[in-house]
Amino acid sequence: MTERDHRGLLIVYTGRGKGKTTAALGLVLRAWGQGLRCCVIQFIKSEKGRWGEVQAAQRLGLEWHTLGEGFTWQAADLGPSIAKAREGWQLAQDKLASGDYDLVVLDEFTYPLRFGWVDPAAAVEWLRAERSPRTHVVITGRDAPPALLEAADLVTEMANVKHPFDRGVRAQRGIEF
Amino acid sequence: MTERDHRGLLIVYTGRGKGKTTAALGLVLRAWGQGLRCCVIQFIKSEKGRWGEVQAAQRLGLEWHTLGEGFTWQAADLGPSIAKAREGWQLAQDKLASGDYDLVVLDEFTYPLRFGWVDPAAAVEWLRAERSPRTHVVITGRDAPPALLEAADLVTEMANVKHPFDRGVRAQRGIEF
Repeated sequence: MTERDHRGLLIVYTGRGKGKTTAALGLVLRAWGQGLRCCVIQFIKSEKGRWGEVQAAQRLGLEWHTLGEGFTWQAADLGPSIAKAREGWQLAQDKLASGDYDLVVLDEFTYPLRFGWVDPAAAVEWLRAERSPRTHVVITGRDAPPALLEAADLVTEMANVKHPFDRGVRAQRGIEF
Repeated sequence: MTERDHRGLLIVYTGRGKGKTTAALGLVLRAWGQGLRCCVIQFIKSEKGRWGEVQAAQRLGLEWHTLGEGFTWQAADLGPSIAKAREGWQLAQDKLASGDYDLVVLDEFTYPLRFGWVDPAAAVEWLRAERSPRTHVVITGRDAPPALLEAADLVTEMANVKHPFDRGVRAQRGIEF
């Protein structure tokens, strides 16, 4: 593979529909199948071990970090959540600058950006200037900030056309989690 | 898991944006992580072995069928493609009726439906009446026919907001394939 072939892309999966995290997982599976080096950092999901993807990652030997413990916008005191989000972003920066990865997923990273817990303009500039130029980065979550959309190479908006919860169907193991 | 918890969903990932097949792959990875029984039938993609997901599936021991050889709408004689699509649908019906699977992916199945190679109304009715009621089915591809959207439990439209090919960036191994 030549240098020209290999430029790290900034990919954003946003929108209110289902499929953002799952699409990122699919990219990880595809990249893993190609023998690429992958890392997933989850910023929100907190129920460690329950999620099928976490169990799959363990079985695949994928590097997987869950920053979700204590991270919620429902808490009365947001201090720990903000600290956790910034810790996650620091970890992400370490991974993205290292050159050790072909693909890094920042799952649900749009939320700390939207809340201003991590400054969107500074984060986008960092991704442009400081990340290893050969590392693909995938960011998921609703309401991606405009600066991120502007900087991205690929943006897909997942629009919710129809959702089973609307019909009173409960979350399904292996599908929703 | 009780009967009530476990109802097979009909899920559609459609739209012109990236992420439809990858979201289906992510669901497979998640379901595989939960120990569920999965099967993928690909109706279009033809370059067997090149795709990261096929290599990943082999490494995971996933059941994976590629009906893509000889299946293209660019051929002068569409006969073999139509036959192949119908063969794929027959295979899909066998899998979906068997009760042996928790999740079956029909990747890019919207195209044979759209072309009328497989009758959309009949296929949708078959999915409703004949498939094992506990089997989730995921159908991907652009331009899902209205009958399919109507019958689906979950529909996400992947809208193309920005695509790197627009900027002259080449397809990236582990990302595009």
